[in-house]
Amino acid sequence: LAQRVSRFGTTVFSEFSALALKHQAVNLGQGFPDFDGPDAVKEAAWKAIQGGVNQYAPGVGAKDLRNAIAEHAQRFYGHAVDPDTMVTVTSGATEAILDVILGLVDPGDEVVAFEPFYDSYDANIAFVGATPRYVPLRPPDASHTTWWFDRDEVRAAFGPKTRLLILNSPHNPTGKVFTREELEFLGNLCAEHDVKVLADEVYEHIVFAPAKHLRAATVPVLADRTVTVSSAGKSFSLTGWKIGWIIAPPPLRDAVQRAHQFVTFATASPFQAAMAVALRLPDSYFQELTALYTAKRERLLTGLRAAGLQAFSPEGSYFILADIAGYGFADDVAFCRHLVTEVGVAGIPPSVFYGPEHRHLGQRFARFAFCKTEGVLDEAVRRLREKL
Amino acid sequence: LAQRVSRFGTTVFSEFSALALKHQAVNLGQGFPDFDGPDAVKEAAWKAIQGGVNQYAPGVGAKDLRNAIAEHAQRFYGHAVDPDTMVTVTSGATEAILDVILGLVDPGDEVVAFEPFYDSYDANIAFVGATPRYVPLRPPDASHTTWWFDRDEVRAAFGPKTRLLILNSPHNPTGKVFTREELEFLGNLCAEHDVKVLADEVYEHIVFAPAKHLRAATVPVLADRTVTVSSAGKSFSLTGWKIGWIIAPPPLRDAVQRAHQFVTFATASPFQAAMAVALRLPDSYFQELTALYTAKRERLLTGLRAAGLQAFSPEGSYFILADIAGYGFADDVAFCRHLVTEVGVAGIPPSVFYGPEHRHLGQRFARFAFCKTEGVLDEAVRRLREKL
Ligand SMILES: CSCCC(=O)C(=O)O
Ligand SMILES: CSCCC(=O)C(=O)O
Repeated sequence: LAQRVSRFGTTVFSEFSALALKHQAVNLGQGFPDFDGPDAVKEAAWKAIQGGVNQYAPGVGAKDLRNAIAEHAQRFYGHAVDPDTMVTVTSGATEAILDVILGLVDPGDEVVAFEPFYDSYDANIAFVGATPRYVPLRPPDASHTTWWFDRDEVRAAFGPKTRLLILNSPHNPTGKVFTREELEFLGNLCAEHDVKVLADEVYEHIVFAPAKHLRAATVPVLADRTVTVSSAGKSFSLTGWKIGWIIAPPPLRDAVQRAHQFVTFATASPFQAAMAVALRLPDSYFQELTALYTAKRERLLTGLRAAGLQAFSPEGSYFILADIAGYGFADDVAFCRHLVTEVGVAGIPPSVFYGPEHRHLGQRFARFAFCKTEGVLDEAVRRLREKL
Repeated sequence: LAQRVSRFGTTVFSEFSALALKHQAVNLGQGFPDFDGPDAVKEAAWKAIQGGVNQYAPGVGAKDLRNAIAEHAQRFYGHAVDPDTMVTVTSGATEAILDVILGLVDPGDEVVAFEPFYDSYDANIAFVGATPRYVPLRPPDASHTTWWFDRDEVRAAFGPKTRLLILNSPHNPTGKVFTREELEFLGNLCAEHDVKVLADEVYEHIVFAPAKHLRAATVPVLADRTVTVSSAGKSFSLTGWKIGWIIAPPPLRDAVQRAHQFVTFATASPFQAAMAVALRLPDSYFQELTALYTAKRERLLTGLRAAGLQAFSPEGSYFILADIAGYGFADDVAFCRHLVTEVGVAGIPPSVFYGPEHRHLGQRFARFAFCKTEGVLDEAVRRLREKL
């Protein structure tokens, strides 16, 4: 066992997915839909398989998918992307994140990120021998209508060794969508310290009005220093296809591509062909996705509140955090274990998404996914109302 | 740009695949077939897509594929594999290799490998801050009928910091198939120095009689210390699907799984379902594959020799190395550039598969892939005979 992996056990996602299965719990844990993406996209995959698109794709990704990624960036964000020099296709956003960190961060460097974080950030920072500097997002309170951060805490986290800021918006698991003003504040800080930005925007199409997703790379101060990571899983309800991508200015794309070629080399060819079709779906597809998730958010939010939980309404992503402090459990892990074994509902304990210093901040919450059919959401609520 | 990637430009595979396209050369470079795998396997993928196998697979891999991997290991090698505690499914063998190195090798450790090597070994060793110790394979000569290694050189490469031996058999690009006696010698050395083994066996089903593939993990002295890596790409002529796997004793599987979950987390679900079908194909499928490649090897070997090249007959893999020392080029890269631009045939210059110390040994050779249809092999030979 190498040192770098010794403090990482099984991910909480695998742990609670297995527990949910074992206890036949309604699974609102790991974030995957229990319904599939568009038939046209599936058929495009089959057409590619039948048509002989079954050998290694180019390492940077299939030309047509790179074109579609660039068109999509232009259409939704006015983000000008050259498909040949600014895009790398990856085996999901998880690989993309590792490629960015391998390509840009040296041992001894520091990486700033917000807590709670997607757990692979923390592992990947450790893999390269860098040091994380975490700043906690704070829950809504009397003077804040959304999750927020303390600007002095962010300033204090930056220093001469800072190499990278990880910015996840829409944010998993709080559902925060960073505002232009927040991105400009962070961008200015990065400019001042010559820091690059990894913008993880996998929930870009799951945002609820009046919140609006802003692509970090289109904020002028961030444009030259930002590597955007996104993926097809969430936007097209096909998390199992594992197609992600990186968009970056050419010198940064070059750095991450050098890493990528020795991480997976290339990504499944037939699904690349299909994802080019998906990214070119008409605007109506994306509007319907938003409408679908707006309704699901409302349904679970209302249900959780009816079950007595104090649940925060997310601005984006398909997760809801609920405050569980009043239930008398030692922490969120104990709460979630009870939930899955006794109530029959699986959620995710978010304290694992914090570093040791701020872990206690996460112990007050549980995360529930609403990317599920109505019947499943209703059954979860029924169980919570009855047994919690 | 992080230090660790700064000395790695574009892989030679990407470079020569692009050059081949540009110059409309016959591509005997990167190792992918120009024909596809069995229809039954393609149809199994479509069935999975239609049947809703489109969300995240378990991080360790789909249960049915893990079962099929274990059955296949038992059927061909009598290798007893517990599918639940000894298998991890990866996004190709390239990811698997990184997972093993991330999971087992610490900064400052040494890794022993043979030259020429698959280039990602060298990059992955650098990624984790370890030091490679390379031992060159020597070409057949008056006293050796196959590629061979000097046992004293191997002994000298082992020391107190050695953590891992990388063993690729059948070997790319020499085509060497390691014998039982060689594996036992290496295994004893590993036992003596408490060293683990990464056995990269992706060409396991492309071996030519009288050579016979021996699974390293079934050699008693290697059993407890060996992590086997293989993949579906070569055995089922579907390199673009990127399904690989790791088989290891539970403690070693645990270490690599910890890495895997933060590299790609999970692998394309529909192709996992299809690969379970592939691995259960009857023996006749595998016999026909061997027969097919036996004929192709013969065809290209005869052709290269007719074109005046001194070509070595491989015992396994779908590559042939040819001696190009007599052609008056500065090195293999110059030779291969000439070949692709002037002759219209793409090969791979193998000197990139050597460390700096022994690079000159590789400059005498060029690598040609014979995983191509007969017409393509014949056209390559025609061009070589005419213009070389
Ligand atoms: C590998 S789980 C990916 C992220 C996600 O879906 C989650 O946070 O549940
Ligand atoms: C990424 S290329 C994989 C190995 C191979 O096919 C080759 O050596 O050509």
